[in-house]
Amino acid sequence: MGIQLFYLKVMASKKLELLSKKMRKLDICMLTTAGARGSLTSRPMSNNGDVKYDGNSYFFTYRKSHVVSEIKRNAQVHLGFEGNNNLFISVSGKATPVTSKAVMKKHWIDQLKQWFEEGVDTPGIIMIHVKATRIRYWEKSKEADIRIK
Amino acid sequence: MGIQLFYLKVMASKKLELLSKKMRKLDICMLTTAGARGSLTSRPMSNNGDVKYDGNSYFFTYRKSHVVSEIKRNAQVHLGFEGNNNLFISVSGKATPVTSKAVMKKHWIDQLKQWFEEGVDTPGIIMIHVKATRIRYWEKSKEADIRIK
Repeated sequence: MGIQLFYLKVMASKKLELLSKKMRKLDICMLTTAGARGSLTSRPMSNNGDVKYDGNSYFFTYRKSHVVSEIKRNAQVHLGFEGNNNLFISVSGKATPVTSKAVMKKHWIDQLKQWFEEGVDTPGIIMIHVKATRIRYWEKSKEADIRIK
Repeated sequence: MGIQLFYLKVMASKKLELLSKKMRKLDICMLTTAGARGSLTSRPMSNNGDVKYDGNSYFFTYRKSHVVSEIKRNAQVHLGFEGNNNLFISVSGKATPVTSKAVMKKHWIDQLKQWFEEGVDTPGIIMIHVKATRIRYWEKSKEADIRIK
């Protein structure tokens, strides 16, 4: 059943700041895309670590990957994050493939070298930019005694 | 980027049994649906606890909830589970609303009474049955030194 947790439609930047703090340690999310026949597929993606979340996420992958062909057909995606204490974050957004080396460089971190040896010059590399259109999150209340189960 | 974890297309019942063990403790998942304009929405749902997963999931909610209207329009959904040690489970499936009290009773557990005081006779109650069409999971390898970041 739908668990009774807090619901927040992130509208103001202050709320987004609050959420950003909660997301700091959540490196990996599930990126869900819709396939040609409407089936929904998801895979874990790294959010590039300890970044300040401002409604934009960046993921490095390869041009030939399944996720890239899916977002090219249908840009509407979902990011699901989970944290401790029953924190669940839902990000509905639009995905854009980015091939500009200059833009990729802005989001590059050296830890990515283990997968992309030549950095943003790695053959076939691409970046996926997900811009949030709606963010919601749920978590165990600190004030109310809301039991999850 | 796409993290380098194990990939398993669950075909055989033995593999499903293995996965079922991993899922025992994962009560809450994110249920993702597609909206009228194709936007993807997700919310945490309780899997009714310590059940043996056989490719079928059951969630209790209310008929008037947003998730029910979404699955009635588009039955293709996704369940995302996360566990310890970077375990990620992706279930693509089809959702069916179930209103039969007899069928609901089979999946009823008394802990649900905190939300549905009159059990399966609670006014407006409905059950969502999600039948998996494809299951994949990823986790940190115990054998290989696969770094997540």
